[in-house]
Amino acid sequence: MSKPYISDAVIRRLPRYYRHLNDLQNQGVVRISSGALGTRMGLTPAQIRQDLHCFGDFGQQGYGYHIPTLRHEIGQILGVDHVRRIIVLGAGHLGHVLLKNFDFQAAGFQIDAAFDIQPELFGAVIGNVTVRPMTELADYVALHHPDVAALTVPPQEAQSLTDKLVAMGLRGIWNFTNVELTSPVPGVAFEDVHLMDTLLKLNYRISHS
Amino acid sequence: MSKPYISDAVIRRLPRYYRHLNDLQNQGVVRISSGALGTRMGLTPAQIRQDLHCFGDFGQQGYGYHIPTLRHEIGQILGVDHVRRIIVLGAGHLGHVLLKNFDFQAAGFQIDAAFDIQPELFGAVIGNVTVRPMTELADYVALHHPDVAALTVPPQEAQSLTDKLVAMGLRGIWNFTNVELTSPVPGVAFEDVHLMDTLLKLNYRISHS
Repeated sequence: MSKPYISDAVIRRLPRYYRHLNDLQNQGVVRISSGALGTRMGLTPAQIRQDLHCFGDFGQQGYGYHIPTLRHEIGQILGVDHVRRIIVLGAGHLGHVLLKNFDFQAAGFQIDAAFDIQPELFGAVIGNVTVRPMTELADYVALHHPDVAALTVPPQEAQSLTDKLVAMGLRGIWNFTNVELTSPVPGVAFEDVHLMDTLLKLNYRISHS
Repeated sequence: MSKPYISDAVIRRLPRYYRHLNDLQNQGVVRISSGALGTRMGLTPAQIRQDLHCFGDFGQQGYGYHIPTLRHEIGQILGVDHVRRIIVLGAGHLGHVLLKNFDFQAAGFQIDAAFDIQPELFGAVIGNVTVRPMTELADYVALHHPDVAALTVPPQEAQSLTDKLVAMGLRGIWNFTNVELTSPVPGVAFEDVHLMDTLLKLNYRISHS
């Protein structure tokens, strides 16, 4: 099935749709109306219909969206249908949170390995993943070709480690270090997780309510 | 100084400006040009000037922004100048990350207490904050009136705990539970941290580069 044009604005919202559709599917829900999905997501039914008008079932008013189909279509666009490989660098508390609790599979990733510089962590198994010495990183990457690295290392190590990872061929950095990172070569994607921004937003909303 | 109108789009970007200005101030930088700030933030100088044209120094071309002034003005708008009180509910790995590493003060918050249900954590001091039994939450809130709670509890406890917090008078929830929460009464702000969305975005960007 060829895809109609999807605007950048919709693309930016697709992760949120995908997450909700995942949750609904895990709860065993098969169909959902634009009204019910809107209530769940804090959007109007009209916004939902406008965003999703290119994904099946439109025109059949009152029929609702078929969740597995919609989830599959959005997943294809997001690239979740190709399993990619991710490694976690830094196995401290934040690394633990990711390795133990994060559903990498739902985002289209296989979590392969974790690395740290603390000898006491070497060999520890966290959520089925073994922590390896950072000195083994280059050999591991040469052998297994991970696509993405989650960076939970101290900020002062973030850029030099990024430079190494890019030189080794990684194509994406999921950045938890609060440092704005750059790549020495083009074609590397960065997604920064800035907890500070969300708490500042919350403060703003409390101050102006 | 009375404030000119600031659009919602600019408001949404202010946390990011504020974070960068904080970093620059911590590095001892006093003035920055729109060009240098743009390079740092991945924006054009024109976008920077357009966003910040209501905050001092505009019209003085080549002079740049005075960082302490700009930071102060943006901080006032964000509400950072009134110190608010925050508590952390759940002192597991994610609670640890927040208590040990997160700069609450930079977001305008004083971190007062943490609560958990695991007896082995009671009395533990993490980043200067003592973990208390969840059974003491109501008495603590009645006495100290925290404004915001960071929720790092298991998802199945998130909504019932939120209902209790709202009934106790808290006005904001910084939500790490991956559950969409609602308040039984209006006037409560939620900011959800959805790590999944950022990893899905990264996957999309890698798949389409």
